Amino acid sequence: MKIRNLSVLFIFLTVILAANDETSLLELAKKNHLQAIPKSKLELLQIIEDPTNSLTQEKIELGKILFFDPRLSKSNLISCNTCHNLGMGGVDGVSKAIGHEWQPNPLHLNSPTVYNAVFFSHQLWDGRVDDLKGQISGPIHANFEMASSAQEIEEKLQNIKGYKKLFQNAFGINAEISFDEVVKAIAAFESTLVTRSRFDDFMLGDENALTQNEKEGLKIFINKRCAKCHKGYALGGWKVFFRHDRYKYTNIGSFQGNQNKLIKVPTLRNITQTAPYFHNGMIWSLEETIYEMGKIQLNTKLKQIEVDRLLDFLKSLDGEKPKIIYPNLPF
Amino acid sequence: MKIRNLSVLFIFLTVILAANDETSLLELAKKNHLQAIPKSKLELLQIIEDPTNSLTQEKIELGKILFFDPRLSKSNLISCNTCHNLGMGGVDGVSKAIGHEWQPNPLHLNSPTVYNAVFFSHQLWDGRVDDLKGQISGPIHANFEMASSAQEIEEKLQNIKGYKKLFQNAFGINAEISFDEVVKAIAAFESTLVTRSRFDDFMLGDENALTQNEKEGLKIFINKRCAKCHKGYALGGWKVFFRHDRYKYTNIGSFQGNQNKLIKVPTLRNITQTAPYFHNGMIWSLEETIYEMGKIQLNTKLKQIEVDRLLDFLKSLDGEKPKIIYPNLPF
Repeated sequence: MKIRNLSVLFIFLTVILAANDETSLLELAKKNHLQAIPKSKLELLQIIEDPTNSLTQEKIELGKILFFDPRLSKSNLISCNTCHNLGMGGVDGVSKAIGHEWQPNPLHLNSPTVYNAVFFSHQLWDGRVDDLKGQISGPIHANFEMASSAQEIEEKLQNIKGYKKLFQNAFGINAEISFDEVVKAIAAFESTLVTRSRFDDFMLGDENALTQNEKEGLKIFINKRCAKCHKGYALGGWKVFFRHDRYKYTNIGSFQGNQNKLIKVPTLRNITQTAPYFHNGMIWSLEETIYEMGKIQLNTKLKQIEVDRLLDFLKSLDGEKPKIIYPNLPF
Repeated sequence: MKIRNLSVLFIFLTVILAANDETSLLELAKKNHLQAIPKSKLELLQIIEDPTNSLTQEKIELGKILFFDPRLSKSNLISCNTCHNLGMGGVDGVSKAIGHEWQPNPLHLNSPTVYNAVFFSHQLWDGRVDDLKGQISGPIHANFEMASSAQEIEEKLQNIKGYKKLFQNAFGINAEISFDEVVKAIAAFESTLVTRSRFDDFMLGDENALTQNEKEGLKIFINKRCAKCHKGYALGGWKVFFRHDRYKYTNIGSFQGNQNKLIKVPTLRNITQTAPYFHNGMIWSLEETIYEMGKIQLNTKLKQIEVDRLLDFLKSLDGEKPKIIYPNLPF
């Protein structure tokens, strides 16, 4: 065999092996329960549809309006969007949430993103509720957040003429607006806040959707067992044991998870946009966060090159946001 | 002449006279300096263009992003849109503005609308500045509003990578982002916040744009001399003497206008959406506001039927808002 033929064979084998390698990475990712947000609207709806709260355009539109309406708070100044700012990755960009009358969150908790929260199995930092509907009433009622009771909101909305028709369109002709409907409408809107990224295209078989560095990052992500917790459609949203004892800022705020020290795993989608990090928002750099997470949860000192590749991979999770027309609130 | 012919003549004359009456109302309105916001984009631009701050799409888009960016405030939590909520008629819907660390406005001043503010000859409640650019730095710097210095904002924006390109697109390649550019961009965006209404169509000759009641309201509006102050494109935006002594809530907050007791006349456009009313936001009902304004500025006790018609007219000033796509803020 001539030298030339040999080198052709070599290139051929390299391509085959590389292709196999891609396939293996995809298979590996699937085996580790990383899931693509589907491209197909039907498939997506099959995942996000809540059988107790069917999605209609009218309900989603009403939910959007309510999401942006500061009159849902006691002061009339704080809306869902204040802490879950849809223009800022669904967060407020401050360490601890600030609520009614400028009260800081008493546990020094950071506002988690609302984008892709529909995929979470558990909501709120201690994961005490399991769907969006359960989450929504938390901050609305908390006296250090929006500080509104269900009754106050019902009375207020009842007196805003324009809401009557919107609720009727969404829920049919009822005598009065109920807080339950408010929650359902907001949940319906929030469930549309889904952001697909290049990672999803990769997971659906498009090998070129990720760069080599991003793929290496994904490999490290799986091999180092980050995906044990950051899995599923949201790469997060489960309840896991957090090594509070190994977290250097564990004493900032008194949050220690639920009674079993479990906390909700934050989604990694759009993570580049949701600083500061950790439940108490104490670290601003994503690079430092990756390094610390290695120490805390993996009991590993990650090498710089590993951190770099993981960072590359995380950037591939930046997704496309749904276009939101800023609503004119009813009067 | 037969009876039938006579009645035809009568109808004919009625129509002619009615038409004349319409023309007179239009002429009367024009003579009283009520002005239509033009339909033609060119004509509108000729009115709103600021020779020191030419309008470009890039500058307007940057201004929109800055308008919604809470990082312009010291706390990173208050944006221009917090008090001038574009979904709520350009205001916050509370009596006195609430700012940095939940401080109330020390003069108990109510947030005026940003819609159509481009048409004002004077800005801020005491009318101390004369254009949007002058207005913008006021609330940004005030320690009870956004509490940010020019330097803090420049440094902050400089460190947000995504802003660099946006400023370059809007202002050309400069070494650094300047606060002056921030102000210019926001002013450019705000100058597009113009809302045409049926009133403008009437002022451009469409007699059917207003109902009979609205026309009667307009007549009363002119005859009672409301239009002496509420004139021009915005039906407001001038500095006039306010009879503080006749205002029943004059002692709420210490604002008494400028050194000559002049205050800026609020625009009447979208007035149904900008409650509460008066500089200290003490009256929630528009009907009551009309009645009180009669007593205060006109020294007249308006009849209920006059108040009703004035209310009809004011409702015709509800304009169409520009569609705003909620911006994704740069990181």
